[in-house]
Amino acid sequence: MTALQTIFQHSLSLNLESGLPLLATASETTASEADTTIILAGVLLSLVFIYFASKLGGELSKLVDLPPVLGELVAGVIVGISALHLVIFPETGAMASDSVVITILQQVVGLQPENASAVFASQSEVISVLAELGVIILLFEIGLESDLRELQKVGTRAAIVAVIGVVAPFIGGTAGLMLLFGMPTIPAVFAGAALTATSIGITSKVLSELGQLKSKEGQIIVGAAVIDDVLGIIVLAVVASLAKTGEVDVLNLVYLIVSASAFLLGSIFLGKFFNKSFVAIAQKLQTRGNLVIPALIFAFLMAFLANAIQLEPILGAFAAGLVLDETDKRKELDQQIIPIADILVPIFFVSVGARVDLSVLNPTSAENRQGLIIAAFLIVVAIIGKIISGWAIFGKEKVNRLAIGIGMIPRGEVGLVFAGIGAASGILDKPLQAAVIIMVILTTFIAPPLLRFAFKEEAEIVEETGS
Amino acid sequence: MTALQTIFQHSLSLNLESGLPLLATASETTASEADTTIILAGVLLSLVFIYFASKLGGELSKLVDLPPVLGELVAGVIVGISALHLVIFPETGAMASDSVVITILQQVVGLQPENASAVFASQSEVISVLAELGVIILLFEIGLESDLRELQKVGTRAAIVAVIGVVAPFIGGTAGLMLLFGMPTIPAVFAGAALTATSIGITSKVLSELGQLKSKEGQIIVGAAVIDDVLGIIVLAVVASLAKTGEVDVLNLVYLIVSASAFLLGSIFLGKFFNKSFVAIAQKLQTRGNLVIPALIFAFLMAFLANAIQLEPILGAFAAGLVLDETDKRKELDQQIIPIADILVPIFFVSVGARVDLSVLNPTSAENRQGLIIAAFLIVVAIIGKIISGWAIFGKEKVNRLAIGIGMIPRGEVGLVFAGIGAASGILDKPLQAAVIIMVILTTFIAPPLLRFAFKEEAEIVEETGS
Repeated sequence: MTALQTIFQHSLSLNLESGLPLLATASETTASEADTTIILAGVLLSLVFIYFASKLGGELSKLVDLPPVLGELVAGVIVGISALHLVIFPETGAMASDSVVITILQQVVGLQPENASAVFASQSEVISVLAELGVIILLFEIGLESDLRELQKVGTRAAIVAVIGVVAPFIGGTAGLMLLFGMPTIPAVFAGAALTATSIGITSKVLSELGQLKSKEGQIIVGAAVIDDVLGIIVLAVVASLAKTGEVDVLNLVYLIVSASAFLLGSIFLGKFFNKSFVAIAQKLQTRGNLVIPALIFAFLMAFLANAIQLEPILGAFAAGLVLDETDKRKELDQQIIPIADILVPIFFVSVGARVDLSVLNPTSAENRQGLIIAAFLIVVAIIGKIISGWAIFGKEKVNRLAIGIGMIPRGEVGLVFAGIGAASGILDKPLQAAVIIMVILTTFIAPPLLRFAFKEEAEIVEETGS
Repeated sequence: MTALQTIFQHSLSLNLESGLPLLATASETTASEADTTIILAGVLLSLVFIYFASKLGGELSKLVDLPPVLGELVAGVIVGISALHLVIFPETGAMASDSVVITILQQVVGLQPENASAVFASQSEVISVLAELGVIILLFEIGLESDLRELQKVGTRAAIVAVIGVVAPFIGGTAGLMLLFGMPTIPAVFAGAALTATSIGITSKVLSELGQLKSKEGQIIVGAAVIDDVLGIIVLAVVASLAKTGEVDVLNLVYLIVSASAFLLGSIFLGKFFNKSFVAIAQKLQTRGNLVIPALIFAFLMAFLANAIQLEPILGAFAAGLVLDETDKRKELDQQIIPIADILVPIFFVSVGARVDLSVLNPTSAENRQGLIIAAFLIVVAIIGKIISGWAIFGKEKVNRLAIGIGMIPRGEVGLVFAGIGAASGILDKPLQAAVIIMVILTTFIAPPLLRFAFKEEAEIVEETGS
């Protein structure tokens, strides 16, 4: 379906010259097919850049004994809007003419300048959706690797960590901004709300890389991050409604809390029955993909349902993974999900890095300087507020409280959503916007090495006391 | 990143009410992020439908002892534009209001009617690109499973089969349409050209399902289909230039032939050196995806390069597979590509089926009746023209000539491209368009069961003579 660009243009000009009637639907067919060819070329090239960056970053990170995902994020920053412009997205304000991929397509595949914007938008959209599918598969995989019984055991502790990890930075951030910086209530509340997020994707990936996903600490962090994701959605709804009407929309709040709880608990409860049907179905199927396709149907359907009741799709995928974890087919499924995750997950992490615009760190701009000062404050609150949550676990039980607190630090893509909405609504002014973004970047990049350090510390203590 | 639709609208209306300045780039951020959420929901739902259809169709097909891919194609027709409208594409003339997915999104995720067309276009584009990635992965896998030395051994025979399989239906079709139906030269030549295509995707998938990919016949068919793909592009270029200027653009023709040959031979030749570097690199990498990511970088880059020199991307992916087939890592890589192919390839086959509009078969329309008569003629030429090619293999060697000829029959998506261009340029009138599409449908659907029959016949003869 290539060579079509040129040939299609031939045919079209032929048509115009000879004055034959052009069939409307049919002409759309081929125009759009030619588009798909060019968009596909753009996607292929973007994927080559993304994969190359992810491997280079991951391997270098591993060489200096840091978690590979940190390297993928940094590599994303390098190929992204801040530096090489190989992987950029229109949402960050980038134009088609900024994109190296589009420039190459114009020179090599014959992309016309007048179509450049449309192709840029479309191919970025495809990469964005692939990245989202990546984080859905990641959470599905994390769900598969998590143990439901273990999660239930740590449930109360995870809930405490999540609640403290939301309340402490929210109060600290809001109060600090109002008292120390003299900010009005609404922006202070919004910036405080942005401090509550936890990026379950980054945290769980690091845990998995450290081999700590199934440890007690790992399960508490994952459980708390899931609950935090739900809380984050509620906080966002509350803040938005508060900002709009000056009061909280209690009905919507109750709806969100009830639907989120019902979804997570209900899916796990129903899942216990569904388990057996799933295995029975998978065993009866005889064609290729007999295990992985039914599993993905389930995961994608759950992600869609979560989305439909206003939760994050990744929560649905996580619940689906938890349910299928209980089946006899788990190991086989796990084995087959690995390569799928390997090709989709890096798209997510490189994209997160690529969207980070480091120009907010440039201190020559006055707004940035002001932002940097506020950012320093927000970062301190962001880190302390989450670390406290680890020590909120009561009892004398021996758990690595520092690791748990650190595990909750990265704000990642969730924090960027807060920043985006705050900016779009005009609630956050430029310096405060910059401050929130800097806080998100720093907490995201600092957490992986810190988490590794916290677990290593522990391992050394265990070794010393053991010997 | 959900609940954003509603909250974003809150924030926006807040902004309008309070009259705060709306930041252009930032507002684009969130608007586009909200879009991505809805588009993602549409993609998830489409994938659920596609996977469900592919498994149901594939399994039922297997139950009645037919190749699963036939069931996937039929299931695609059922969920597509011809019946259920679960998976439809704008290129077939479908509107957002026809799409069941869009209707569900409007009712469940709060998609606004004014955005329906844009979301429909975007989510269809994503599915189209995923389908294209599916056929790229399929050809990469076929390349991995093909044996380069075996292919070189059958090279001459494959070339003969391909050339006869292009020349015979082209001459038969063009002459027949001019002599029997009194058609003008240009449309007759174009319809004749549409008869030359062979869908390597469908053929190779059926061969793989029958376990015949590595047989002598299988390798001849795959080799011939690859050469046919190149020939098809050349034929298309010739026909288009003939139709435009009344004469053949010799320069472009020479360019295409030289570049195609240089690409395929060059990549295989260079591949022999690249092999060792690839294994060395994969062995040094220590992070997840150490084998599959470098392999995909290579495959996608080759697909892009093929596209850049006006070949089909799938030819590049096939060449990449052939090269990596020669490495020590082949088995391991093969194992990891399987689940990736399992989730991407069905999207391609279901999409091919979903785009087929069976309404051209409705005999109550006069145009369709005329089309049906021409179609009957084209189908006969299409089948005989390709079956002849099997008997074109000289020598007394014992090969299953019938199976080879049948293997070349399916026109699949390549035939649809001819039909689309012919329609868009106005060269094919409505009845002739319909006839070409019917020919493509029938040859595509008839080949898998026939191929199975041809190989079974042989197996029984072997068994009988053996016992």
